[in-house]
Amino acid sequence: MGSTFGHLFRITTFGESHGGGVGVVIDGCPPQIELSVDEIQYELDRRRPGQSKIATPRKETDTCEILSGVFQGKTLGTPIAILVRNQDTRPQDYSEMATTYRPSHADATYDAKYGFRNWQGGGRSSARETIGRVAAGAIAKKILKQVANVEIVAYVTRIHTLESAPINPLAVTVEQIESNILRSPDPAFVEAAIAAIEAARDRGDSLGGVLECVARNVPKGLGEPVFDKLEADLAKAVMSLPATKGFEIGSGFEGTRMTGSEHNDEFYTDDTGTLRTVTNRSGGIQGGISNGEPIIIRAAFKPTATIRKEQRTVTADGTATTLAAKGRHDPCVLPRAVPMVEAMVALVLCDHLLRDRAQCHTL
Amino acid sequence: MGSTFGHLFRITTFGESHGGGVGVVIDGCPPQIELSVDEIQYELDRRRPGQSKIATPRKETDTCEILSGVFQGKTLGTPIAILVRNQDTRPQDYSEMATTYRPSHADATYDAKYGFRNWQGGGRSSARETIGRVAAGAIAKKILKQVANVEIVAYVTRIHTLESAPINPLAVTVEQIESNILRSPDPAFVEAAIAAIEAARDRGDSLGGVLECVARNVPKGLGEPVFDKLEADLAKAVMSLPATKGFEIGSGFEGTRMTGSEHNDEFYTDDTGTLRTVTNRSGGIQGGISNGEPIIIRAAFKPTATIRKEQRTVTADGTATTLAAKGRHDPCVLPRAVPMVEAMVALVLCDHLLRDRAQCHTL
Amino acid sequence: MGSTFGHLFRITTFGESHGGGVGVVIDGCPPQIELSVDEIQYELDRRRPGQSKIATPRKETDTCEILSGVFQGKTLGTPIAILVRNQDTRPQDYSEMATTYRPSHADATYDAKYGFRNWQGGGRSSARETIGRVAAGAIAKKILKQVANVEIVAYVTRIHTLESAPINPLAVTVEQIESNILRSPDPAFVEAAIAAIEAARDRGDSLGGVLECVARNVPKGLGEPVFDKLEADLAKAVMSLPATKGFEIGSGFEGTRMTGSEHNDEFYTDDTGTLRTVTNRSGGIQGGISNGEPIIIRAAFKPTATIRKEQRTVTADGTATTLAAKGRHDPCVLPRAVPMVEAMVALVLCDHLLRDRAQCHTL
Amino acid sequence: MGSTFGHLFRITTFGESHGGGVGVVIDGCPPQIELSVDEIQYELDRRRPGQSKIATPRKETDTCEILSGVFQGKTLGTPIAILVRNQDTRPQDYSEMATTYRPSHADATYDAKYGFRNWQGGGRSSARETIGRVAAGAIAKKILKQVANVEIVAYVTRIHTLESAPINPLAVTVEQIESNILRSPDPAFVEAAIAAIEAARDRGDSLGGVLECVARNVPKGLGEPVFDKLEADLAKAVMSLPATKGFEIGSGFEGTRMTGSEHNDEFYTDDTGTLRTVTNRSGGIQGGISNGEPIIIRAAFKPTATIRKEQRTVTADGTATTLAAKGRHDPCVLPRAVPMVEAMVALVLCDHLLRDRAQCHTL
Repeated sequence: MGSTFGHLFRITTFGESHGGGVGVVIDGCPPQIELSVDEIQYELDRRRPGQSKIATPRKETDTCEILSGVFQGKTLGTPIAILVRNQDTRPQDYSEMATTYRPSHADATYDAKYGFRNWQGGGRSSARETIGRVAAGAIAKKILKQVANVEIVAYVTRIHTLESAPINPLAVTVEQIESNILRSPDPAFVEAAIAAIEAARDRGDSLGGVLECVARNVPKGLGEPVFDKLEADLAKAVMSLPATKGFEIGSGFEGTRMTGSEHNDEFYTDDTGTLRTVTNRSGGIQGGISNGEPIIIRAAFKPTATIRKEQRTVTADGTATTLAAKGRHDPCVLPRAVPMVEAMVALVLCDHLLRDRAQCHTL
Repeated sequence: MGSTFGHLFRITTFGESHGGGVGVVIDGCPPQIELSVDEIQYELDRRRPGQSKIATPRKETDTCEILSGVFQGKTLGTPIAILVRNQDTRPQDYSEMATTYRPSHADATYDAKYGFRNWQGGGRSSARETIGRVAAGAIAKKILKQVANVEIVAYVTRIHTLESAPINPLAVTVEQIESNILRSPDPAFVEAAIAAIEAARDRGDSLGGVLECVARNVPKGLGEPVFDKLEADLAKAVMSLPATKGFEIGSGFEGTRMTGSEHNDEFYTDDTGTLRTVTNRSGGIQGGISNGEPIIIRAAFKPTATIRKEQRTVTADGTATTLAAKGRHDPCVLPRAVPMVEAMVALVLCDHLLRDRAQCHTL
Repeated sequence: MGSTFGHLFRITTFGESHGGGVGVVIDGCPPQIELSVDEIQYELDRRRPGQSKIATPRKETDTCEILSGVFQGKTLGTPIAILVRNQDTRPQDYSEMATTYRPSHADATYDAKYGFRNWQGGGRSSARETIGRVAAGAIAKKILKQVANVEIVAYVTRIHTLESAPINPLAVTVEQIESNILRSPDPAFVEAAIAAIEAARDRGDSLGGVLECVARNVPKGLGEPVFDKLEADLAKAVMSLPATKGFEIGSGFEGTRMTGSEHNDEFYTDDTGTLRTVTNRSGGIQGGISNGEPIIIRAAFKPTATIRKEQRTVTADGTATTLAAKGRHDPCVLPRAVPMVEAMVALVLCDHLLRDRAQCHTL
Repeated sequence: MGSTFGHLFRITTFGESHGGGVGVVIDGCPPQIELSVDEIQYELDRRRPGQSKIATPRKETDTCEILSGVFQGKTLGTPIAILVRNQDTRPQDYSEMATTYRPSHADATYDAKYGFRNWQGGGRSSARETIGRVAAGAIAKKILKQVANVEIVAYVTRIHTLESAPINPLAVTVEQIESNILRSPDPAFVEAAIAAIEAARDRGDSLGGVLECVARNVPKGLGEPVFDKLEADLAKAVMSLPATKGFEIGSGFEGTRMTGSEHNDEFYTDDTGTLRTVTNRSGGIQGGISNGEPIIIRAAFKPTATIRKEQRTVTADGTATTLAAKGRHDPCVLPRAVPMVEAMVALVLCDHLLRDRAQCHTL
């Protein structure tokens, strides 16, 4: 059951990086939403390999097909199945991985659990699986936009030890992010980070980093205590992406260095009579429920595990060996992680929007 | 549905801090496990208020009753219902909160979502809700111990700006943790942190901090890619606890400052022929699946929101006011969060143990 | 997970017939619904033992306590836990059943599955478990009444070979049903059936029968193809009750003796412009979705398995023996099954009401 | 969420009868099961249209493609996606149905619920959706065969008013069933029923009927009281198929005409020391749990709603009209329902097999 996410706006992804294709089935989507292939393709293009000099050179157009659930340009309310065929596959690049475990990759654990794995290109553990998430996220974004003008923007804030200038989450725009291949609104940081990533790649190494994501105009009331608190579901959503090592909401780990009187977000009533908070250390969520302030989260992505540099490892039969990975890999996943994180945040918010409407707006 | 957690070892908690009581129903527990009330009460005693000078002075014994699911000292395989009556309730201490929103607490968001709330003692958003989790976690711990000798130990590593000496997660014991009221194995840190918490309390303020949790002897193969990766479910579990602001696995946010070649955990085969990793930056999980190394996570807990110090806020009708909270509150949640985090980790591991057995050990 | 039912209006029952008690946790209930203990007790009184000369003489008042989820007479939107203590227990009556399997009862299969069971009074397989369902159903009924004036009435239509006169499902009232201990609106049938049940009881035997349930004023649009069709969820709901052997919707098995042109329900537009059907062989559901016509189902309940008459059976160690059951048992479950079926129908409709609101009424 | 079925062996179907295609994603399948496309195609061929003179003449080969989850001829433990493209579509045959509601079909209720529908060929409500179920069922059957030699055979027992001779569920074979286009082991009945179906078709009418399904060698212990009793999940599974109006287990509705002493299945110990029952009125399930005897269920399928004969109905705007359906329809669904019911039974048993292994065989 581990390939299904969400309760009412529920997605199920499928597919390995090599094989027939990857995709998603979205069940529970509201009917009568105008939806075109282009809207989904736009987000897939942000995610696809080969889009820039700091992404993997693997050449995949990731062209999607809507198999069901849409009729005459509108959603039917029935399952929406979306398929992307695999194209630029080179299983021969991975033949060594059939028997040799890449350090910090999923090869060994898949073998331990299933006794068997598709070693071509990472199989199911490939980031290629996130195509289904991003496609579904495009629809979730559209619903959130339509219902409440929700805006979701993610951006890279750190690469290795390089940090961007402080970003104003109230003002940052998708246009700013998409204006450069790193996906950050700070030009100086963009330049330095790209150089660092290229240098790492040229050394056969890789870099990690941190990104931040803001969701603005989120309606009050989303989130279901006690286990499905909004931050809990966001944490799960983000930590289910490949290469994540940490998650924060609002003040995060740094907030623990403040006292309660410093940390608390005082309330006030704004000009329109709306309850607001002066500060937003809560990150838009209090008691597990959105409070109408921007939701702000951060995620840590480790440096890509698959590198060209030679490393010590063992084979499936336990023999010590070394591995210098072939294949075409991202020297840094952060730029392509931006649309993935946005998609996961959109999926959580859309699911909780429907859940809130059901429980709290039916009577 | 937000009060249910887990798929096969599935718990549903209920109860407000004031009212008939709080508790849990555990569905899906394997049959024939020896289980006494004392084993559950032991963990509840670690969680209960009034246990030390740095916990809330609220006097509750939190005595539990097993209502069902156990017969002649053994589990039946049927739902185990556990009830703890509320005793030392003082609704009058909270009368002001009926109309005034505590900053950074759940008062305002519960009103926004449900249009109504039990304002006595925080109602459902009270940490008292975690009684059900800790009771269920005691059973999960027992199963994990019995199946694979799994050991789960959490310990405080930072209070405000005070940090403990580095802790060896391979060696730390429950006895060390339980030897002091802070729940840390570092005596110098314990002394300083207790003093800091008492000082904060005396100022009417509160402190936050960080705790770490290790799970040793976890069988290989637990976790279900792609959404129910083990770290994703751990993140959700921990971030569903009150006052959490961040989650890390293994190298966490700091790991992003390393390169791939530095960060990767090289494999080797140990004396017993077991596949191991030289380092453990992965934190015991690779590709969403446990690899047999210790699972190591960290969680950030913000300073308690409810404080005696006067703060600016508004009333439910939007009028500006100030609030100096009455009632009996923890000046720092970390010591009592230790058994809560252990319980949540145990619940995730036990659920995934059953899930793994079903999918990968049936044929 | 087998003790949870429903997706949004979700109940989890617990408890054995002997032990601390039985009850239910209802998660996902909309907030701000006025709710008193009396409303729940009313339905429990319809279900309780000892209510008439044709029910088991077991003396239980089945007095319920609301432990959580209700505050100042209104639902909070948090889990509603309801507990009924066990009182008139006589474990000694069941000592023989500790080792001897009652024919067609759950004793042997519980042993086969769990390797262990609470043999006192049937344990978890006792009809006493349905207390939680009936309590939750009382709340579901109230919501359905409030939202759409939905009326749910069940009534016995056959006992053994005795059949009632045809009942008009459009007109039958709860008052008619509750006017007699059999729960049927046909006085002649009531008299004959009561006599037959008493005669069977006096012989140490038992009788089964059929009941019908109608739900009127159900909004159009409830039900989620393809697996959660409304009739599929109703079938599961009813067939999860003890002693059920069959389920029908609308024309049922008899409808298969008609041709398509005879069976189809022709459409017309009524005076108010509403789309209606001339006949209702569909039983109020077409394509898995309610069409606004009365929903009409039937359920077959076998004769009670536990009887005083001596029967051949075996002991847990496989030795042939005979059993003449002691204990106090219903000679016919139909009269007490009426509130159970009504409750299950209400739970399905309420869950689907919320689901429909979420998917089809959010935009 | 209504297009997902099962908890551990979990399937999600997608697709409309006209559009890109139909299919299924199977999540939770155990790894390392040998699986070929041919094994799935075999069952799809039993289900496909155009296979005989008494089925719809629509010409679809229903050729399936495995998109993911299988590698080198074995299951990976990852989601198995299976796609069947739509081919012989004639939307023009359905143009009238864009505005005119077919009596007793899903046209009107889909419009009522979703405000919109794919009127081509029934869209999502088409029996074409069951392709995904049958494909998934083929895998479930294989697992059940491999684990416990489980055999599942369904067969038609009544068409309109014509009944087959009594069938021995212990002895009936798939070969007998597949030897004729009606799918019954009684040659005389086969001949008469085929003639009746052809006559009905020639009149522009349709027939319904009853089928029985037996599952032999089912392990003891499957089923999860109290809501997920095995018969409850079987009832839901079968009643979620198009055109079903009734479900029975074991003695069914007729069993209610017996007394308890007549109906009860007496226990005995057989030569191998196995606990058995003399009779099998329970239908292989007691207390919601399989007892090792053959599981025997029956289902009622109404006469096909779409017929050529002219009927009164209304258009979407409420105007009275008549409809004589064009398009190519089954004059009787029973022969093609046989593999559908077998598939649904297999899906339930396989899911419960994994669930039982998880809860009751882990310790």
